[in-house]
Amino acid sequence: MDDLLEDLAGGRITLDKAKKEMWKRLYIQGVSNLDFGREGRTGIPEIIIAEGKTDEHLHDTAASALESGNRALISRIDEGTKDNLLGSLEGELKEKYDPEARFLILRKEGFTVPEIRGKVGFITAGTSDIPVSREGEIIAMEMGCEVRSFYDIGVAGIHRIVEPLRDLSDWGADVLVVAAGREGALPTVISGLVPVPVIGLPVSTGYGIHGKGEAALFAMLQSCSPICVVNIDAGLIAGAVAARIARGSGRT
Amino acid sequence: MDDLLEDLAGGRITLDKAKKEMWKRLYIQGVSNLDFGREGRTGIPEIIIAEGKTDEHLHDTAASALESGNRALISRIDEGTKDNLLGSLEGELKEKYDPEARFLILRKEGFTVPEIRGKVGFITAGTSDIPVSREGEIIAMEMGCEVRSFYDIGVAGIHRIVEPLRDLSDWGADVLVVAAGREGALPTVISGLVPVPVIGLPVSTGYGIHGKGEAALFAMLQSCSPICVVNIDAGLIAGAVAARIARGSGRT
Amino acid sequence: MDDLLEDLAGGRITLDKAKKEMWKRLYIQGVSNLDFGREGRTGIPEIIIAEGKTDEHLHDTAASALESGNRALISRIDEGTKDNLLGSLEGELKEKYDPEARFLILRKEGFTVPEIRGKVGFITAGTSDIPVSREGEIIAMEMGCEVRSFYDIGVAGIHRIVEPLRDLSDWGADVLVVAAGREGALPTVISGLVPVPVIGLPVSTGYGIHGKGEAALFAMLQSCSPICVVNIDAGLIAGAVAARIARGSGRT
Amino acid sequence: MDDLLEDLAGGRITLDKAKKEMWKRLYIQGVSNLDFGREGRTGIPEIIIAEGKTDEHLHDTAASALESGNRALISRIDEGTKDNLLGSLEGELKEKYDPEARFLILRKEGFTVPEIRGKVGFITAGTSDIPVSREGEIIAMEMGCEVRSFYDIGVAGIHRIVEPLRDLSDWGADVLVVAAGREGALPTVISGLVPVPVIGLPVSTGYGIHGKGEAALFAMLQSCSPICVVNIDAGLIAGAVAARIARGSGRT
Amino acid sequence: MDDLLEDLAGGRITLDKAKKEMWKRLYIQGVSNLDFGREGRTGIPEIIIAEGKTDEHLHDTAASALESGNRALISRIDEGTKDNLLGSLEGELKEKYDPEARFLILRKEGFTVPEIRGKVGFITAGTSDIPVSREGEIIAMEMGCEVRSFYDIGVAGIHRIVEPLRDLSDWGADVLVVAAGREGALPTVISGLVPVPVIGLPVSTGYGIHGKGEAALFAMLQSCSPICVVNIDAGLIAGAVAARIARGSGRT
Amino acid sequence: MDDLLEDLAGGRITLDKAKKEMWKRLYIQGVSNLDFGREGRTGIPEIIIAEGKTDEHLHDTAASALESGNRALISRIDEGTKDNLLGSLEGELKEKYDPEARFLILRKEGFTVPEIRGKVGFITAGTSDIPVSREGEIIAMEMGCEVRSFYDIGVAGIHRIVEPLRDLSDWGADVLVVAAGREGALPTVISGLVPVPVIGLPVSTGYGIHGKGEAALFAMLQSCSPICVVNIDAGLIAGAVAARIARGSGRT
Amino acid sequence: MDDLLEDLAGGRITLDKAKKEMWKRLYIQGVSNLDFGREGRTGIPEIIIAEGKTDEHLHDTAASALESGNRALISRIDEGTKDNLLGSLEGELKEKYDPEARFLILRKEGFTVPEIRGKVGFITAGTSDIPVSREGEIIAMEMGCEVRSFYDIGVAGIHRIVEPLRDLSDWGADVLVVAAGREGALPTVISGLVPVPVIGLPVSTGYGIHGKGEAALFAMLQSCSPICVVNIDAGLIAGAVAARIARGSGRT
Amino acid sequence: MDDLLEDLAGGRITLDKAKKEMWKRLYIQGVSNLDFGREGRTGIPEIIIAEGKTDEHLHDTAASALESGNRALISRIDEGTKDNLLGSLEGELKEKYDPEARFLILRKEGFTVPEIRGKVGFITAGTSDIPVSREGEIIAMEMGCEVRSFYDIGVAGIHRIVEPLRDLSDWGADVLVVAAGREGALPTVISGLVPVPVIGLPVSTGYGIHGKGEAALFAMLQSCSPICVVNIDAGLIAGAVAARIARGSGRT
Repeated sequence: MDDLLEDLAGGRITLDKAKKEMWKRLYIQGVSNLDFGREGRTGIPEIIIAEGKTDEHLHDTAASALESGNRALISRIDEGTKDNLLGSLEGELKEKYDPEARFLILRKEGFTVPEIRGKVGFITAGTSDIPVSREGEIIAMEMGCEVRSFYDIGVAGIHRIVEPLRDLSDWGADVLVVAAGREGALPTVISGLVPVPVIGLPVSTGYGIHGKGEAALFAMLQSCSPICVVNIDAGLIAGAVAARIARGSGRT
Repeated sequence: MDDLLEDLAGGRITLDKAKKEMWKRLYIQGVSNLDFGREGRTGIPEIIIAEGKTDEHLHDTAASALESGNRALISRIDEGTKDNLLGSLEGELKEKYDPEARFLILRKEGFTVPEIRGKVGFITAGTSDIPVSREGEIIAMEMGCEVRSFYDIGVAGIHRIVEPLRDLSDWGADVLVVAAGREGALPTVISGLVPVPVIGLPVSTGYGIHGKGEAALFAMLQSCSPICVVNIDAGLIAGAVAARIARGSGRT
Repeated sequence: MDDLLEDLAGGRITLDKAKKEMWKRLYIQGVSNLDFGREGRTGIPEIIIAEGKTDEHLHDTAASALESGNRALISRIDEGTKDNLLGSLEGELKEKYDPEARFLILRKEGFTVPEIRGKVGFITAGTSDIPVSREGEIIAMEMGCEVRSFYDIGVAGIHRIVEPLRDLSDWGADVLVVAAGREGALPTVISGLVPVPVIGLPVSTGYGIHGKGEAALFAMLQSCSPICVVNIDAGLIAGAVAARIARGSGRT
Repeated sequence: MDDLLEDLAGGRITLDKAKKEMWKRLYIQGVSNLDFGREGRTGIPEIIIAEGKTDEHLHDTAASALESGNRALISRIDEGTKDNLLGSLEGELKEKYDPEARFLILRKEGFTVPEIRGKVGFITAGTSDIPVSREGEIIAMEMGCEVRSFYDIGVAGIHRIVEPLRDLSDWGADVLVVAAGREGALPTVISGLVPVPVIGLPVSTGYGIHGKGEAALFAMLQSCSPICVVNIDAGLIAGAVAARIARGSGRT
Repeated sequence: MDDLLEDLAGGRITLDKAKKEMWKRLYIQGVSNLDFGREGRTGIPEIIIAEGKTDEHLHDTAASALESGNRALISRIDEGTKDNLLGSLEGELKEKYDPEARFLILRKEGFTVPEIRGKVGFITAGTSDIPVSREGEIIAMEMGCEVRSFYDIGVAGIHRIVEPLRDLSDWGADVLVVAAGREGALPTVISGLVPVPVIGLPVSTGYGIHGKGEAALFAMLQSCSPICVVNIDAGLIAGAVAARIARGSGRT
Repeated sequence: MDDLLEDLAGGRITLDKAKKEMWKRLYIQGVSNLDFGREGRTGIPEIIIAEGKTDEHLHDTAASALESGNRALISRIDEGTKDNLLGSLEGELKEKYDPEARFLILRKEGFTVPEIRGKVGFITAGTSDIPVSREGEIIAMEMGCEVRSFYDIGVAGIHRIVEPLRDLSDWGADVLVVAAGREGALPTVISGLVPVPVIGLPVSTGYGIHGKGEAALFAMLQSCSPICVVNIDAGLIAGAVAARIARGSGRT
Repeated sequence: MDDLLEDLAGGRITLDKAKKEMWKRLYIQGVSNLDFGREGRTGIPEIIIAEGKTDEHLHDTAASALESGNRALISRIDEGTKDNLLGSLEGELKEKYDPEARFLILRKEGFTVPEIRGKVGFITAGTSDIPVSREGEIIAMEMGCEVRSFYDIGVAGIHRIVEPLRDLSDWGADVLVVAAGREGALPTVISGLVPVPVIGLPVSTGYGIHGKGEAALFAMLQSCSPICVVNIDAGLIAGAVAARIARGSGRT
Repeated sequence: MDDLLEDLAGGRITLDKAKKEMWKRLYIQGVSNLDFGREGRTGIPEIIIAEGKTDEHLHDTAASALESGNRALISRIDEGTKDNLLGSLEGELKEKYDPEARFLILRKEGFTVPEIRGKVGFITAGTSDIPVSREGEIIAMEMGCEVRSFYDIGVAGIHRIVEPLRDLSDWGADVLVVAAGREGALPTVISGLVPVPVIGLPVSTGYGIHGKGEAALFAMLQSCSPICVVNIDAGLIAGAVAARIARGSGRT
């Protein structure tokens, strides 16, 4: 904004015009002033949730995301909706679709892949926890992290945990996301064995009393060994937080 | 009741008297008929809960228990109340008081110690779970079981579990009671490692959301490896059920 | 592992080879060390839950179970899925399907039937509790127990309870699983009449406030007479725990 | 109100005065019109809850109740407060104090005892349910009912129920109030055995999950045999509803 | 049973045969002894819930009810199922079907209509509460009561309450069942205006937080004026309890 | 900010100084920019909650409030703490203390009383709701509103509601705050009778299930007639929102 | 009613006829007496909820509303049902249908549009909150208010809030309705920035624990800045309360 | 372990002794094998919770911690208990006590201060959140992190957030812990403005429905911008997880 003052001092603009311009900028400044945590720096891309959107509305948001950032990340989108969407979008697009996580990634020419930095390990207690974990893995990768995953490492046979942890430790994981339903004990057990941050990801696999992931959530919040937690089935949140941690860890 | 018919057939009583006597007995029979699971066979002694009773009321119930069974088991009784009670009771009594569990056992001459049969192992995740576990241990012992306990075997350092389980396995435990608060993961982990029945005993040690033992209870109910569960802080129930199991196991 | 040292001492292997071999074994030992409660001894077979699995995934897990143990136990599988599965599996199989419990048992030649030991009694309060109870009965039988069941013994007509209990008592049941929805009072009443362990199995039959089995669960946890409890509709868990108890009871 | 028209027609009042008077009465009529269920007919006396009232406020309400109805019913009042209150009230009073229920009844000369009609039976599962039951008994008696009570008739020994029910049946109870804490099964069991209305009264005796009477309340609401229910520890409500029922039953 | 003694005394049977016969009867007596509150006296008929039953199972229970009592009461049965059932049942039947309550009444020749006694008033706050109320009305009528109903008497326009209450009062209702969803205030308001017992019947009409009838249930349990309550949507229970009350009231 | 440009254009400050000054102001502008809803316009004064504050901390906040606004509003302060505080504060203060609401108002010379505008009516269902209502009344008055209150207008005797509503209507109340515990029906009933906005204020007077004001809160949220609601015992919030409404209503 | 007295005084009717007439009127007066808050003055029109109504029932209520008020407001009505309804209604109708809110407005000739007075601002946190907000907007407009709305103003990018608030402030909004799901923080943030009353409208958009709007509701009830709240998805209630506030504000 | 083989091969020990030694080591190896995430590497020190411990028990654990690690960290310890403890411990100790957090740090000679690495920022919404935040700050510092804190940055005046965030950003915080009670919106708002990981720390400051921190917890779990969460009042867990993150971030 110094240029304005300089122009005025240099007589390159009139006082009136300077006033007008200043107020115009001030307002924007007033608003954007707060925005020092802008998207570019947070590195967390906007994710479009297809569920509950009409085809038309979905097309508009996707097109707009491609326009502004050359990329569209769309979660909870089934195969049919995906095909409709792709048919309606213009221009050449690179497409990657994960049917298990029901996640679609679209990239337009011009998209700059983020520098690879940070390693996130994903572990699930059962096979039914995989789709939720997959959502986290994809978002972490889209944020520029490397990802390594181990599935179906249940707490009932505690000895099965050793091998994956050893592998992730050798690989140099910066942070672990541990997904579990039912009694949700796995993140607690793992956090007692590793030196890196552990994010507990409760999954809505269970039954009976508080069986839609609540029991797992409550147990993780009570964990004896320090972990932090996200909401039930919040794979996207877990992936994004993990990526923030890992990218911080990996910087020099 | 055959005697009645025999007496009638033998002319030792009149028909009228036989009728009267039969109906009197029938009524009692009608009632006691159901009682084929009587206290003597269930082996679970009545326990007096001191909490919430006046000194006078406590004295009366204790005296009555000593009268009918030569033994009084009194839980949740603090030291002062205990001394008052002992001062007020007549006759010679053998006394055993556990200050941690606040449990008092009184025995009068004539009490028949039950035959020793069945072995119950007790494990607690933390030190604060001990008083609740102690209640279970005492009731199991009073029901004639042998008891062996390991305290403070937390799930956060999973490797600490090995030694106690090896010991209990060598000893030949028929059943394990595993007490845990917070996230309540210990019974789940242990049940995946042993072949004997495991009873999860949630304890009201925790904090925050569902921190008064509920999170532990919910997690145990969701356990991946098969366990059965009792109410929060229900050491007495866990001990009684375990003793029933162990005594069945030990019979020949 | 002594053989290794003996071979080394006896000069039958070189120091280098001994070192290599030792570390190889150590790692396995380190892991399997914990595994003294291995599946073989726990006697609880793995159960495949068909619900939520794709046909392909179901086929793979079933085939793998048949491979490793000559048996596949599959719960919550409807008739159509069952037929698809059977069509896709190779080799000669003995099949047993229970449509009420939606439970499928497959056995390959070579399967060793476990020695018959232990008796488990099952009682349900209503007819709608039967499918859940059936799941428990099947798993108990597969674990080598004898099973006897009485259905629709409601608590509203308390006198109907007498006959089944007398029968189960004469038969020599080691443990009872009592399934009930609504107010869940039946296990409490029964436990006050019998000397054997009682497992309360709350069922999601009810309505209104906490009517999906929660009221029954809460009531069982508060039971005046000692019982232990499993999660709502957890017939499989109840059956497995009961079998563990019964098999311990029946040993000599 | 006919007198007004008659006076006007008879010329005993002016039109203006008639209008004024009519509107004055109309307003009262408008209000009292609704009051066809007035206190005199409902027969449910106002009860003063001492808990949470200052001594001064308590004195005022009690004095006012004595003034308007020659009787004051005061619940949840401890002995000290009672003595203070009695010291501060003027005039000759008949006093009856129940220390267990902490209930005080004061009567002034001129109080008309309601005609005795209707019989209410009270049953409690445990001894700790007695104070809550006592509150109901007192209010039922003050409403003119006869009351008969049986305490400590637990559901764990189901055969103990027979005798009290036979007695109450012979006595001709119009309605039963059944108080129970813990799992609250007693009203369900009793309602299956008797032909009269049963009111379930859940009591806050229990522990652990939903142990402050909620489990008992939920179970009673799910009861297999038809009962109606009041809030936890709501002995006063149970007593008042039972009295309404009994007095209706006893009328000719 | 006196005949047995008389036969023995009269020498008409041998002592052995008498013993055998006595024990056989004793057992039945032991059981039926408890049954002094038998169905005949309770007057509450068994109700078959069609929901969740196979056509075959439904046919069997209905046939058996017609056999034993010449009547079958079937709730929650839709029109199609009803037609199937009627086609499958043998013999001449009188049929009455209420499509709103989805309730079917079947009577065989020989059914004795209960003596008409007792009057039950039904009031609903909204039109959506009608089906639940209808269930109660039908069961009350089947138990021999007269029934009068007023629908859609909301609490929001309190003045609309006057007329129905006046009518029910003139008619001489012994008891009122008041059904309401949402905030469930109507039973409270009515109980403050009438002298007869009021049963609050919460209905699952509402939305948002605790909107499936729970808010109504909680509010009724907290009611300032004395009412008793049944579970959410428990029209059958409300009707049966009300009929018990009304029939007691109407007796001479 | 135009002065800065003018000074620069007029050569009264150097470019450097102008830049510095501009950035200094910009930052404040950036922040205060958002503050167009400043305290002065919102009219809601800061309230100090004494509960949980040390005497020292309380003194500091009170002194600071007096410094900046010439007034200190302190809620939940008991008489002893109040006396301590008054002893420690310097300068001449006008004091007003409400012992029932435990609310203290302190004013220093220089405090400008807000212009009187807007009328708020307060109604409570019972006497125990008064302290919570009082908090709202005080804050509304401190915000410049007139206040009129009616206490103990229970829903059980619906006819008692008429008189207060007529009075408040004649007075011209802009908005009503209706406080109620137990079943919380009063705001619903009142909102059906008046044309002004009604704020439901649930109070923690009740007992048993959801008896700490939750039942009242849930019922108010389900209200058939339109009301808005604040949290349990949130008299301060209700008063502040009501004052906002009333002051808007009263403006010309 | 003065005419009656005048007629009597003037001898135009007999005393008998006057008495009869008076009682007839009195009764109506007695009832309508309470109705000083009549619909005409409350200005809140009856809304018909189509959901759960049969086509026939819907037709009848709509026809009756058109009859009595020349307008029918029908919410939660899908396009098909709407077409059926329109086909079945007689007479010329003006129709307005909002497919997003699924709201139908029908007006008959003779309908008097209410005087325009009061301004209500609507803000939603996300796009999925729009349908619920729309319901409120429509009812507010039907009550005669002007409405201005801003959608998708999330709390995650707090700076996006500035512009809409500035606009609504310039426009002169009397009250704001702020709809939000998930964590429901937006009304709190906004209420801290504006001087007008804010109504928090929690929406059932969220997931996991308390994700159906409950978390948003709880957070709004705990709000640090004063707001009042309606039930989850209660757009109609929010709109009606806001209109009441705004119309009061706009009066002179 | 190679040395053992070498000694045996070299004849420096006998076969017997080698076997014995090997098994002794093997067992430890078997256990410690799992311990590759040992305390030394996790860097999370054991914390002793004084609350609920007897003086004797507290002394023993503290002495033992000082013995093994030259440091004892004791939380929730009041001043009196602290003085008793210090009086009972032997040897020269450096003591630091934080009365607000009630946290005691004891160090013995020989304690090695961890290398300073990683920066953790702490922000609280209100002053009552400070003690919980302090616990986290202390544990983070003891784990070798730098800490910077801002207190009382409420969400109600959103503009107050700017300054602290700018400061923490300039300082280079690796992770932020944001503590908030009531509606818990602050972490959500902050996470939308910064690029580093944010840990939401709900605090039990609130009132009414879910007012003990649950509303804050639920809201944080629903947060629109990605954060992870710990249990209510779990300052210690938040601090430990943050330190793990920050130390990873700071490594080179």
